[in-house]
Amino acid sequence: MGKHGIILFGHGARDPRWAEPFERLAAKLRAMRGDPVSLAFLELMTPDLPGAIAAQAADGCKAITVVPVFFGQGGHVRRDLPQIVEQCRVANPNVAIHCATAVGEDEAVLDAVAGYCLRQG
Amino acid sequence: MGKHGIILFGHGARDPRWAEPFERLAAKLRAMRGDPVSLAFLELMTPDLPGAIAAQAADGCKAITVVPVFFGQGGHVRRDLPQIVEQCRVANPNVAIHCATAVGEDEAVLDAVAGYCLRQG
Repeated sequence: MGKHGIILFGHGARDPRWAEPFERLAAKLRAMRGDPVSLAFLELMTPDLPGAIAAQAADGCKAITVVPVFFGQGGHVRRDLPQIVEQCRVANPNVAIHCATAVGEDEAVLDAVAGYCLRQG
Repeated sequence: MGKHGIILFGHGARDPRWAEPFERLAAKLRAMRGDPVSLAFLELMTPDLPGAIAAQAADGCKAITVVPVFFGQGGHVRRDLPQIVEQCRVANPNVAIHCATAVGEDEAVLDAVAGYCLRQG
């Protein structure tokens, strides 16, 4: 039975400190599950999504869930990401690649953000 | 005694659907408190932050908390935002403008995102 990887997909930025919450998030998930958890970026940071998927496939993942760590779903999530995922499916025909909805659409995430906002008031 | 406004500051995008989680977040906060809650964007969407702050000041806010609704803190949050906030302080000398850390740095927000990721696996 193959492993089931999770890839946290973010936009990327020039400032390396930008990635800190993504690294903390990956560390949290690794503490919660044994299968691979890695990061991938649309631009300005590495690895990109094809690279991250190839690495998890080489590591024995037969299923990979890509989670867009974005608040809003604009062109990057609605247009760029499906195109990249489709290329990855062609390049990795033996891996079932599932793409989740952006985290900012989740009610519990929004509740946590609202709680944070109230604590700043 | 003046009102205390909250402004949710996001990047902005071309696709109007991008703003949906921000609107849901603002609605949640309005249900939790009586004072003004509004949105502001760095680019591509309106209002911008100076416009949102001027509107809350005109509405009677004597204190305003700006919450960057970003996961990572890169150039937009570390460089652009403080410059805009400083201009807003000069333009609104009678309003105490406080700027929070980006929501993605908050432990409870990251825990909620991690929970979402696990539910997708």
